[in-house]
Amino acid sequence: MDFFGKVAVLGAGLIGPSLAFALKKNSMCAETRAWSRSESTRQKCRRKKSIFDAVFDSPLEAVEGADIVVISTPTLYIPSLASEILPHLKRGAIVTDVGSVKGEICRKCFAAYSGSSAVFVGSHPMAGSEKIGVDFADSGLFESRPCFVVADTSAVGERAEIVRNAADTLRKLWEGVGMDVYAVDADTHDTIVARVSHLPHLVAGTLCVSSAALKTDIRPYSGPGFRDTTRVSSGSPEMWDSIIADNRAKILEALEDYRRTLDGLIGYVKNSDTKEIAQYLRTAKAFRDGLK
Amino acid sequence: MDFFGKVAVLGAGLIGPSLAFALKKNSMCAETRAWSRSESTRQKCRRKKSIFDAVFDSPLEAVEGADIVVISTPTLYIPSLASEILPHLKRGAIVTDVGSVKGEICRKCFAAYSGSSAVFVGSHPMAGSEKIGVDFADSGLFESRPCFVVADTSAVGERAEIVRNAADTLRKLWEGVGMDVYAVDADTHDTIVARVSHLPHLVAGTLCVSSAALKTDIRPYSGPGFRDTTRVSSGSPEMWDSIIADNRAKILEALEDYRRTLDGLIGYVKNSDTKEIAQYLRTAKAFRDGLK
Repeated sequence: MDFFGKVAVLGAGLIGPSLAFALKKNSMCAETRAWSRSESTRQKCRRKKSIFDAVFDSPLEAVEGADIVVISTPTLYIPSLASEILPHLKRGAIVTDVGSVKGEICRKCFAAYSGSSAVFVGSHPMAGSEKIGVDFADSGLFESRPCFVVADTSAVGERAEIVRNAADTLRKLWEGVGMDVYAVDADTHDTIVARVSHLPHLVAGTLCVSSAALKTDIRPYSGPGFRDTTRVSSGSPEMWDSIIADNRAKILEALEDYRRTLDGLIGYVKNSDTKEIAQYLRTAKAFRDGLK
Repeated sequence: MDFFGKVAVLGAGLIGPSLAFALKKNSMCAETRAWSRSESTRQKCRRKKSIFDAVFDSPLEAVEGADIVVISTPTLYIPSLASEILPHLKRGAIVTDVGSVKGEICRKCFAAYSGSSAVFVGSHPMAGSEKIGVDFADSGLFESRPCFVVADTSAVGERAEIVRNAADTLRKLWEGVGMDVYAVDADTHDTIVARVSHLPHLVAGTLCVSSAALKTDIRPYSGPGFRDTTRVSSGSPEMWDSIIADNRAKILEALEDYRRTLDGLIGYVKNSDTKEIAQYLRTAKAFRDGLK
């Protein structure tokens, strides 16, 4: 079992508290610390003795002496918060985030940290729930879920080794709470998540938006198929709004690719091309049945 | 509790056996009978004493003396089977089907039955499972699920009353096994199912087909969102092939409407129109959150 010293979590939505909970439960670290922007959330965190050992009013205090810092705020705040804490980190501290898009975050944070004694390595643990907040913290949230770790591959010499070691530590951290970890570069990461997460969200959303525009409310007639196909649309519009802005280019590519595929299908249906339709359905089924 | 006399089920996939199971379990009928095209299925049915009282080698024998006949074969065979059994039905017998598209089936069967002493009323119990076969028969399959009943509204005089009574009996039958029953005409039915069932199937299928065409296999990185959004794609391509052929016009209308909505979204993303994107996501969430 690996051991991770003092771990500070900045932002107390779902991922941060769940990680702290899992680490503490399995005695994988010396101390779990938290900071949240909101006083009422900090109060809640203080009552969760099984999750956090210490809760701070300022992120600068929270990271003081920490070995690992996990920034789990909305993506918008990650680069500025990473820069803000930098002067307060101990030598060799490892900072990561849990943002769902990595391009811009990694570009900014790699640059900010390049001359320092601390290291920034991006993370994206693909785990979550519609239920957000420290009250829903779940130490089993990460079990068997994929996690990306994105290290700065432009580092050279001794720094390259420090970066590699930091990435390795984060791999062990996420594996320690049950995740399947993949090391990728930021661009590859953003392409993959556009396909496995962002496109499905928009495809489901489009189904809801086009249904909402009908004269008849079709919801009373819907069943588990409709329910499952549209489930992700219940996600927070604010969070998704910002994800789409962060990963616009990759999402647009995925959407346009999807539309081309859809246009093919519409052509087959228009022409009653039963052979092509059957092939389309078989391709879809084969792909879906191959999901683990 | 209503009582339905002798009930014959033609075709022993999932719906027919599950209905017989539910009726027998709740003592809602005098006898449950079955016929299946396949000898091996008939053998299986004979062993299910808790589901069927009698299993016949021919549909004509199975319907002899039956009060209610439920045709639960693939849609392709429904009109011909309905015509084939007609001379063998007892006076006042009620025949229904469970086909997922009603336009053509009802047109043909209403015409075939119009001059007879028996009545055809279409049904579409919206219940099912990926697991098909008498071994998966589930008496709870229909619980709280919607069911459409489609009666011939062109009947006049005494016949109109007979048709209304038959539709009423079927309403009680489906309600008796737990369903929420809606009386609609065939065209309305086909429009509704194109939207709640057929379009989601094709939207999910398109997500799979476009994903399958990527160089990278994205499946290892996918999570519950991707899994749920694509789940229905695992359905039988043969069954769906025939559903699409049966409901082509309504499906095409739904697909083209969906594409127009998607084009709108693509435009917003292209133009970084965050205000419209936020509104789109809120509309989608509001619609989805309103599902019972």
